[in-house]
Amino acid sequence: MPKIVDHQARKEKIAEAMWQVVLEQGMEGATVRNIAKQAGLSLGALRYYFKSQDDLLIFGMNLVKERAGARMAKGLQLDLPLKEKIIALLLEFVPTNEEKRAEAEVWFAFTAYMQPRKKDFELEPDGILPGMHYVIQNLQEAQLLREGLDVPIEVERLYALIDGLALHILMDPDRLDPQKVEQTIRYHVDSICRITE
Amino acid sequence: MPKIVDHQARKEKIAEAMWQVVLEQGMEGATVRNIAKQAGLSLGALRYYFKSQDDLLIFGMNLVKERAGARMAKGLQLDLPLKEKIIALLLEFVPTNEEKRAEAEVWFAFTAYMQPRKKDFELEPDGILPGMHYVIQNLQEAQLLREGLDVPIEVERLYALIDGLALHILMDPDRLDPQKVEQTIRYHVDSICRITE
Repeated sequence: MPKIVDHQARKEKIAEAMWQVVLEQGMEGATVRNIAKQAGLSLGALRYYFKSQDDLLIFGMNLVKERAGARMAKGLQLDLPLKEKIIALLLEFVPTNEEKRAEAEVWFAFTAYMQPRKKDFELEPDGILPGMHYVIQNLQEAQLLREGLDVPIEVERLYALIDGLALHILMDPDRLDPQKVEQTIRYHVDSICRITE
Repeated sequence: MPKIVDHQARKEKIAEAMWQVVLEQGMEGATVRNIAKQAGLSLGALRYYFKSQDDLLIFGMNLVKERAGARMAKGLQLDLPLKEKIIALLLEFVPTNEEKRAEAEVWFAFTAYMQPRKKDFELEPDGILPGMHYVIQNLQEAQLLREGLDVPIEVERLYALIDGLALHILMDPDRLDPQKVEQTIRYHVDSICRITE
């Protein structure tokens, strides 16, 4: 099936070219013409892979999600105590390095661009909320969660905390650095967990 | 000084016309031509008030901040127990009604548009982080804050929580409604406050 693989690989190359254009020029620069140029393709070649700019946009956005999901799945295989694994997993959702930062910038630009057109797009939800359910459920099953907590609100609170930190480190990396992000996540997880030795 | 007042009022009218265009068409639609049309002005008249699109953008963004600030100041004058006042203040930062929702949409679109060009703009920071300092400091001075908390981390955590909730209600109002937002904020404030009668 080499042909199918090539097709997918070529589409990913084009999506990456789009990300690069978005990072440098914002969504206004992400014209089919600029993206083709960045990818080193003719307009016709690009149109062979993507019928419209919207097709490319949706593909590019889903690719951001897939890559983040793959990173998380990898993180879950780390050989660490559950609480440490969970802190590592939560940190994957926050752009604390260059790779995650580029993805988050692109994600932010895409989301803002789509916001007034949301009804025209069939977008899959991102995987962050299920990730938060997973975290709280795992802490609960391992009997690490403090007693008396409201589990659905804890999911909502963790979800808001993580996306808020992601937004803040994206907007103002000089103020909020990766160490402070990790410290805040660790503090929050400690605050909802039993004290154990 | 009626002339100065008129000048400011006219600028605000133009900024509001820009917000409307951004809400309907996103930042791509926010051309000087579209904004002038929405405001019922000629291009020349609009240029009398704003030399460039960037001037108008910065003015419009600062106006969002000013209006949010004014709403908060009003909230602080409510005759409520401190904890209730603080919950009301925190709720002002989250788009739980149409007016705040429009401002947040515009804010989000502006911020994403400016993100790749941040170095070219002199933007005042928004007032949310100082608001969070104010909240935690007031709880501490009133001896409502639980013992053993890390105050700078509590500021960071509250800031992320509030902006995360704002982002989530903006992105997905069908999932997260104003009641859930209030419940989550109240739960968080309770979690950092002493139990009092």
